[in-house]
Amino acid sequence: MIKKSKLDKYRNLTRDREEGYVNIHPIQRGGVLTPAARKALLEFGDGYSACDYCIKGRLDLIKKPPIQDFVADLAEFLGMDEARVVTRCREAKYIVFRMLAEPGGTIVVDALAHYTTYLGAEACGLRVKEVPHTGHPEFKTQIDAYADKIEEVKRETGKSPALVLLTHVDYLYGNLSDAKAVGKIARQYDVPFLLNAAYTAGVMPVDGKSLGADFIAASGHKSWAAAAPVGILALNNEYSEKVLARSKIVGESSGRKFPIKELGLLGCTVMGAPLFTLMASFPHVVERVENWGEEVKKARFAVEELERIEGTKQLGVKPKEHTLTHFESDGFYRVSQKHKRRGWFLYDELMERSVSGLQPGLTKHFKINTYGLTWDQVKHATRAFQDIAEKYKLEVK
Amino acid sequence: MIKKSKLDKYRNLTRDREEGYVNIHPIQRGGVLTPAARKALLEFGDGYSACDYCIKGRLDLIKKPPIQDFVADLAEFLGMDEARVVTRCREAKYIVFRMLAEPGGTIVVDALAHYTTYLGAEACGLRVKEVPHTGHPEFKTQIDAYADKIEEVKRETGKSPALVLLTHVDYLYGNLSDAKAVGKIARQYDVPFLLNAAYTAGVMPVDGKSLGADFIAASGHKSWAAAAPVGILALNNEYSEKVLARSKIVGESSGRKFPIKELGLLGCTVMGAPLFTLMASFPHVVERVENWGEEVKKARFAVEELERIEGTKQLGVKPKEHTLTHFESDGFYRVSQKHKRRGWFLYDELMERSVSGLQPGLTKHFKINTYGLTWDQVKHATRAFQDIAEKYKLEVK
Repeated sequence: MIKKSKLDKYRNLTRDREEGYVNIHPIQRGGVLTPAARKALLEFGDGYSACDYCIKGRLDLIKKPPIQDFVADLAEFLGMDEARVVTRCREAKYIVFRMLAEPGGTIVVDALAHYTTYLGAEACGLRVKEVPHTGHPEFKTQIDAYADKIEEVKRETGKSPALVLLTHVDYLYGNLSDAKAVGKIARQYDVPFLLNAAYTAGVMPVDGKSLGADFIAASGHKSWAAAAPVGILALNNEYSEKVLARSKIVGESSGRKFPIKELGLLGCTVMGAPLFTLMASFPHVVERVENWGEEVKKARFAVEELERIEGTKQLGVKPKEHTLTHFESDGFYRVSQKHKRRGWFLYDELMERSVSGLQPGLTKHFKINTYGLTWDQVKHATRAFQDIAEKYKLEVK
Repeated sequence: MIKKSKLDKYRNLTRDREEGYVNIHPIQRGGVLTPAARKALLEFGDGYSACDYCIKGRLDLIKKPPIQDFVADLAEFLGMDEARVVTRCREAKYIVFRMLAEPGGTIVVDALAHYTTYLGAEACGLRVKEVPHTGHPEFKTQIDAYADKIEEVKRETGKSPALVLLTHVDYLYGNLSDAKAVGKIARQYDVPFLLNAAYTAGVMPVDGKSLGADFIAASGHKSWAAAAPVGILALNNEYSEKVLARSKIVGESSGRKFPIKELGLLGCTVMGAPLFTLMASFPHVVERVENWGEEVKKARFAVEELERIEGTKQLGVKPKEHTLTHFESDGFYRVSQKHKRRGWFLYDELMERSVSGLQPGLTKHFKINTYGLTWDQVKHATRAFQDIAEKYKLEVK
């Protein structure tokens, strides 16, 4: 028996942070729920709330609530033929790797790919061939090198890579890469192309058809105003038979079989609340991607304001084309070296100014994301950085 | 561009069913949220809400909110050494299959195993050897046959099975199987033992140590008063190095590596709302498993009352030891043959009497679950069945 006293810490779980703070957390901005999604959370909070009217035994075929319509609308919105809701963007990638590639095969990915791209490949027994970037300070993925790397794989293994993957916007510098160019190269070499749109689909327009993507992986909790965990796998018909293959196993003695269930998904995926937040936020998401230009302006403004601080500069491609932004600050780093709280001082000082979301301990390199903040909030956050700089005698131009 | 008119159906998603109905849905009773969990939903609804204070880059190592404590407390509660929160019970099983077994290997499972046991094995390239049950009307899994089947696998393949799996309570008849006996057999043959406790852990006491389980897979949305999707993987130290192995991949050119991330989990799993419902409901769950006896009484009462209806009998082991109950009703089936709504009549009539959760269309075989209903609700539901029987001239003894 577990001691009852151990349970007290679970009795009033609070986040203690969102309200009253301007949150600039690099991965949290696109996942802030809409009011409609908050309502859906309560409406569909209980366990298997998706299953009230399940007749066919598969989540994406449920008509009420309109899940079957939703996956079709999702596909259309992303310019793809089909879509499935899965537990996370990483699962979407893993499903494609698992169902499309043979163990021992190779995939070609940008060297700024999310760690889950590497883990997914590792779990499937795949080798990863990396497409380089230009290094400091731009870290721009060398798109043309996709062709070289495909050739390299062919020379080394005698076979084409199983897949090329591009991280549309990377997690580290927030660089937007030219997906259309990768799509063209992939088509030339007849290699399927997976676009990891975790940081793009849901916040900016992404059209798989015009980009030449065979697969799009997206993240509901990162970029679609949805509760975690929920991801999206969108794909073209050409690959749906293989990647959405149905179960073929037959019980040796029982004869049981499950021909409706999709093997790579292990049957049903998100049968509750996060799915409904994704659906409830969808009308808002469809509208908000059209305002992307304004969001980019806010990011550029933040860069301008933070770069006024002594020894502080934005890394990655300039000007910003995405709201996730990486700063290198020798200025704040020098302050941290003499501060009794060391690197934590910047986090502390920001929190005192009601700005949350900086990773505690970081000063020399840190990331922020201004997506979805009001102009007043962006100004408040950048002014907080400048105010802290001034307090510690860094020049603010 | 997607047509705006298509979006209207997502603007006011409602479940339209819970309030005012007595829900007897076979898989929904154990997942009804506690008030504390409903509060946690709103508190942690936004996207990556678990990641505010993430320092080490792994969900189960986050100290605030107390996720690190929680996985330890979960393990203790289940009588196991370690635990992880994963996206679904099926993922817990898949992770064990994937990390423990080699493709081409064999696992021994009860022939009433959940479909995801078969799919997980299929996805891992494993053969499934089935342990038979006694067939109609008890469908009791022949626990002793686990030994025979292990021997059979050895004869046929020259190797021990990679794993034996028992579905603690099966999805179809709600039979409780003797896990301790399987644990003993597994130990005799030195084969690891996975207990699928989707229908048991969280509603009744389950102690892995005394049952001899090496792994327990459990379902938050099925049995822990949590929002979907969330599962639990609990395991003993003996297997943690292998099943929770960390990533070893190194980027060929970049040198990037991710040695903190657990490969089988693809890194972090449930970084938002469902995890916090699981945590918020945990104190309640720890208490409620002690009241299991009363829940079984309700199930037995329901059997008694429904068996008073002409041509209606409970299938599976008698008396009931679990609240998931399967009925065979020649009576209701005969009515359906002449009814203009055919099999749907029973669903319709129950809904008219404010009883929801019967699978629409079923009459000859249907399942109900009385878990967590008040005695008044159980009586209302059983009275509804009797009332419908009387309306259609079936005798009610």
